Amino acid sequence: MKVNFSSSTTLRVRYGETDQMGYCYYGNYAQYFEVGRVEALREIGMSYKSLEDRGIMLPVADFHVSYKVPAKYDDQLTIRTEITEIRGARLIFNYCITNILGETVANASTILVFVSKKNMRPIAPPQDFIDLMTPHQIVD
Amino acid sequence: MKVNFSSSTTLRVRYGETDQMGYCYYGNYAQYFEVGRVEALREIGMSYKSLEDRGIMLPVADFHVSYKVPAKYDDQLTIRTEITEIRGARLIFNYCITNILGETVANASTILVFVSKKNMRPIAPPQDFIDLMTPHQIVD
Amino acid sequence: MKVNFSSSTTLRVRYGETDQMGYCYYGNYAQYFEVGRVEALREIGMSYKSLEDRGIMLPVADFHVSYKVPAKYDDQLTIRTEITEIRGARLIFNYCITNILGETVANASTILVFVSKKNMRPIAPPQDFIDLMTPHQIVD
Amino acid sequence: MKVNFSSSTTLRVRYGETDQMGYCYYGNYAQYFEVGRVEALREIGMSYKSLEDRGIMLPVADFHVSYKVPAKYDDQLTIRTEITEIRGARLIFNYCITNILGETVANASTILVFVSKKNMRPIAPPQDFIDLMTPHQIVD
Repeated sequence: MKVNFSSSTTLRVRYGETDQMGYCYYGNYAQYFEVGRVEALREIGMSYKSLEDRGIMLPVADFHVSYKVPAKYDDQLTIRTEITEIRGARLIFNYCITNILGETVANASTILVFVSKKNMRPIAPPQDFIDLMTPHQIVD
Repeated sequence: MKVNFSSSTTLRVRYGETDQMGYCYYGNYAQYFEVGRVEALREIGMSYKSLEDRGIMLPVADFHVSYKVPAKYDDQLTIRTEITEIRGARLIFNYCITNILGETVANASTILVFVSKKNMRPIAPPQDFIDLMTPHQIVD
Repeated sequence: MKVNFSSSTTLRVRYGETDQMGYCYYGNYAQYFEVGRVEALREIGMSYKSLEDRGIMLPVADFHVSYKVPAKYDDQLTIRTEITEIRGARLIFNYCITNILGETVANASTILVFVSKKNMRPIAPPQDFIDLMTPHQIVD
Repeated sequence: MKVNFSSSTTLRVRYGETDQMGYCYYGNYAQYFEVGRVEALREIGMSYKSLEDRGIMLPVADFHVSYKVPAKYDDQLTIRTEITEIRGARLIFNYCITNILGETVANASTILVFVSKKNMRPIAPPQDFIDLMTPHQIVD
């Protein structure tokens, strides 16, 4: 089902996240997107931690990021996270990171998969998650 | 120009690179691909370090990765890196990570951009790099 | 000179900061302490970023950390940072990280050194920093 | 018991491990020391991975590092790791990192604790580990 839910969170680029170009290292954005989606899930009423406690994991299956404007040390970044679709066992997120000038720093998307901890096989999303998402369903 | 150059390097998943799922964290692969492309450039005769010393940087503009089989702690991984194209200021790499069972752990691609350190603007690849790549040129 | 200035900041343990023990990886605390000292400096009126812009760097020369209670994924941690002494070119910080139960997660200390960007040699702390610290001076 | 076992391993500083000072970020050394002790244990015949598979974990309780000469991007570093003592549930390592000029980059020590996965309580080191260490025992 297509959904439309978004949330925003902010963070600062840490010194250890820069590289010698003076930019935030391209690999560190993965953590920022993870912070974004954890906060999006929390806002919708679903704690990622509690999912794992129930034996459900959500590994990332696909990750695409396009870097626009470099983020630098101590920059305050806003991560806007959208949950856009639940397709079988898959959960799709889009992200947009902006700096305080309003410039787009990066766009990204990830596909996560609901997986059982027992056998690492894809499973249907838990019903309570579906229930939380249903109010945000949109017609394609 | 389209090129065909590939190289392989191996590394082990470090403990600090795992997450509580027991998998290598999805964000850490970015470093593995970077190790792969640095070794590919070194093999072709171009030190990334020397590029920077000459005022040329190669930031990542686009990064896509598809995760197939989880990598786990202490797994020995082989990163096969292909340089596939030089398109204007852009340099395109493809990657395939496999484990010792021969399973594909991840496929990825990155677009890097030659940039001048002075003004952070895209520039043509340095001629010595073109010269090193020319023997590997292929007809489309 | 001995000083007494402290500040607190909070953060959440990110998923990518855990390891397969389910703990925050021991190496990731270094970033937390860095966040703590950057915020302490900011609170006292000194931006670390502006120091670097003036050609002054503050590398860590010595780092000691004692881990008490594991921090886990999504734990909200409070980092209390104390600036305790300026000794020649050296700046000494102590840290205490606690969780929301009030348990001590880790104690740490770092020695940083004011260094000139030009020649990487230790230099006296800038006068404006001394001026900012002087109101917090204590008699030994 | 006091022991005397040492091993060496090498690695290269990755781009993502540098910071905007152009140095290897101080927090990244923790991973290097971990690589050093995993290789030391492997050389003595003990796989850290197999320890965990048997329900034994080895978290770090104490970590001290003294930074001497900066490590830079692409530097090849040698990590010399010494196992120096088994004291109750504690296992003590010393480390020395050198660069290709033979300069000491960092000295460090860690105290690890054998812990049961079941209850996270300290336990005696497994007998096979003691047996592997015994030939390296020294009189104080």
